[in-house]
Amino acid sequence: MTYIETLGANAKASEKALRCASTQEKNNALAAIASAIEENTDNILAANAKDLEAAKENGISPVMQDRLRLTAERIKGIADGVRDVIKLEDPVGSADFCSVRPNGMRITKVRVPLGVIGIIFESRPNVTVDAAVLCLKAGNVVILRGGKEAYNSNNILCSIMRDAISSCGFPADAVQFVDDTTREVTTQLMKCSKYLDVLIPRGGAGLIRAVKENASVPVIETGVGNCHVYVDESADYDMAVNIVDNGKTQRPSVCNAVESLLVHEKIADKILPLIKKRLDEHNVEIRGCKRTAEILGECVVPAAEDDYAKEFLDYIISVKVVSGIDEAIEHIARYSTGHSECIVTNDLANAEKFKNEVDSAAVYVNASTRFTDGGMFGFGAEIGISTQKLHARGPMGLRELTSMKYLIDGNGQIR
Amino acid sequence: MTYIETLGANAKASEKALRCASTQEKNNALAAIASAIEENTDNILAANAKDLEAAKENGISPVMQDRLRLTAERIKGIADGVRDVIKLEDPVGSADFCSVRPNGMRITKVRVPLGVIGIIFESRPNVTVDAAVLCLKAGNVVILRGGKEAYNSNNILCSIMRDAISSCGFPADAVQFVDDTTREVTTQLMKCSKYLDVLIPRGGAGLIRAVKENASVPVIETGVGNCHVYVDESADYDMAVNIVDNGKTQRPSVCNAVESLLVHEKIADKILPLIKKRLDEHNVEIRGCKRTAEILGECVVPAAEDDYAKEFLDYIISVKVVSGIDEAIEHIARYSTGHSECIVTNDLANAEKFKNEVDSAAVYVNASTRFTDGGMFGFGAEIGISTQKLHARGPMGLRELTSMKYLIDGNGQIR
Repeated sequence: MTYIETLGANAKASEKALRCASTQEKNNALAAIASAIEENTDNILAANAKDLEAAKENGISPVMQDRLRLTAERIKGIADGVRDVIKLEDPVGSADFCSVRPNGMRITKVRVPLGVIGIIFESRPNVTVDAAVLCLKAGNVVILRGGKEAYNSNNILCSIMRDAISSCGFPADAVQFVDDTTREVTTQLMKCSKYLDVLIPRGGAGLIRAVKENASVPVIETGVGNCHVYVDESADYDMAVNIVDNGKTQRPSVCNAVESLLVHEKIADKILPLIKKRLDEHNVEIRGCKRTAEILGECVVPAAEDDYAKEFLDYIISVKVVSGIDEAIEHIARYSTGHSECIVTNDLANAEKFKNEVDSAAVYVNASTRFTDGGMFGFGAEIGISTQKLHARGPMGLRELTSMKYLIDGNGQIR
Repeated sequence: MTYIETLGANAKASEKALRCASTQEKNNALAAIASAIEENTDNILAANAKDLEAAKENGISPVMQDRLRLTAERIKGIADGVRDVIKLEDPVGSADFCSVRPNGMRITKVRVPLGVIGIIFESRPNVTVDAAVLCLKAGNVVILRGGKEAYNSNNILCSIMRDAISSCGFPADAVQFVDDTTREVTTQLMKCSKYLDVLIPRGGAGLIRAVKENASVPVIETGVGNCHVYVDESADYDMAVNIVDNGKTQRPSVCNAVESLLVHEKIADKILPLIKKRLDEHNVEIRGCKRTAEILGECVVPAAEDDYAKEFLDYIISVKVVSGIDEAIEHIARYSTGHSECIVTNDLANAEKFKNEVDSAAVYVNASTRFTDGGMFGFGAEIGISTQKLHARGPMGLRELTSMKYLIDGNGQIR
């Protein structure tokens, strides 16, 4: 048995305890986790200090160091996040469908946990707790494989969670930590379809591509967002400026930020200067087509073909002047990652056309793409934004961490 | 570009025409397919005759030859099956969820097609048409890779469908046939995640395992069913005999047939002889545990460990006497493929326990596992029975061939 198979077998052995637990029992375990995290603040900070020291020694960038850093306040935030999950409605056991067949059989389709979930994630240690408690609340057991740069922080957070759920009568192995961050072991995890029901990668495009290509466990892809705003001929100028600015500059590092702007040729010379003026407040770099440069002048960096495919996650935006909605929709179909797209328009037919023809997880008319988020959609905490079409698309909350089964009640029916 | 990438790119180019088509337009295409199949009966029979001749030359078994054989009546059945799909409700465009957020944004979750679906299937040529029309009705385009023994039959059926949809204004490439049944090309199809949204293997356990292990395209596993009946101490004897007999002998070659019988030790000596007597009418071979042999005598073949894991698809059943419901549930957890399981009982607590703790797609109380079927559940035609937990579980109808997207209507909302 490989190391990962041992973890997998332990997870499978713990799976029934979670699957059959009541909401109250699961909430008690989450409350114990929240308290234990706060009580262990000093120990967590000490472990995190080791990671930060190693990060400095290895010359990791200040931005990445900040993502890695925990403070007493951030630890309190993690515990409060756990308490927010306690408040969420438990999807397990709810029925989507109930039908009595002509022969008298009653068929009920009920939500059940997925089973064993593997999460592969990168630097931020708070993901360890956020992901684990969402899995537990939906009745799943979880195997966590974090990045090696957060090894000590992730390790202690997992230990604390294991002790906490164990104190509530659950098997500690309902939360397991992959104590080996080598590539070989990560590959074993991706191939462990005997024990894992699903694998969720959380991180950059490279990680997600590697998991998608190598996993034999079913995967839910998350998070790469090359999001577009198309400003139609009939758009309200103020609204368009606000939506582009909000999408690009309110938090450029997240997946629902705007990366590309398409503008109708008939209004480009009027609206592009207004948009530029607003984006200048954040020194946003504009990578534009020829027509954009003609209108805005030398400040425009000529856009290369691949700029339209990039998720900048920075104060950079690609801009293209288009002949109308058809070219805009075609451009989006070619370059989008299927995350979130927006049209700003006052034309009803174009609004409908955009909603019907754009094939992305979230399609907006006259609102910022920054709303693609479990909290903003009213679903509560999310484990990621799915950009695939199978199982889950868009913000994935507790419901997306469940499956279903059919229960059939009869009194002797045969075919 | 590889051969499969060319098919994939053609599929992607055709995808929007189907995705944005109305139900009426799609139904017209299906009606054209049904008529064209009937009109081409002689041509289809001629192509099928070539496949049958090759099958005889290659010494393929009479049972497999029968699966391969088309007759005028079977071709009429295929066309009628297409007309049944016309009558089914189109899931595309229906809304699962609609919510107005505090800021006034309206969020609607609508059903959309999955996109490009690959189907890999084995010998029966009717699957070519059944699978394609379900995909089309749900707004998807499809790439079909059938078994080489049905090459000529599949090829002509695909040509007929391509001509028919083309005559209704749809691109012919919405239905494509993989004209190369080598392993290399099949592997390319499994890896073609650039163009395929999902891959559905339909066939034996070997095919499904190969697809699951090799595909980077998301896969929906179908169909392997090691289904159990557990006869509890309180069971009605007549009902138990009927349910076991129906599950085992009504159609032993299908995935929802019963393969394994578990009997409570306190009634084993009374009920096993009754069950045996009924199964003897079909000369069912019993592979039993030691206790089963003590009760039924020498006719019992001693069950090897792996007999309990087998999907016999034949007049063979494995039997085990168990100490009670806990052992039954444990046995099922160890050996089941997660398809369908049944308890026969009059004990309310045990019925509930079985439904809660057994983790299979369909869990029955006092009814035959043979009901796990799209038609029997009232969903209409199905593309298969999913035994995985992601995206779809149990009978997969039109709804399971769709995804969803969020449409957000605002009037300038920003974060």
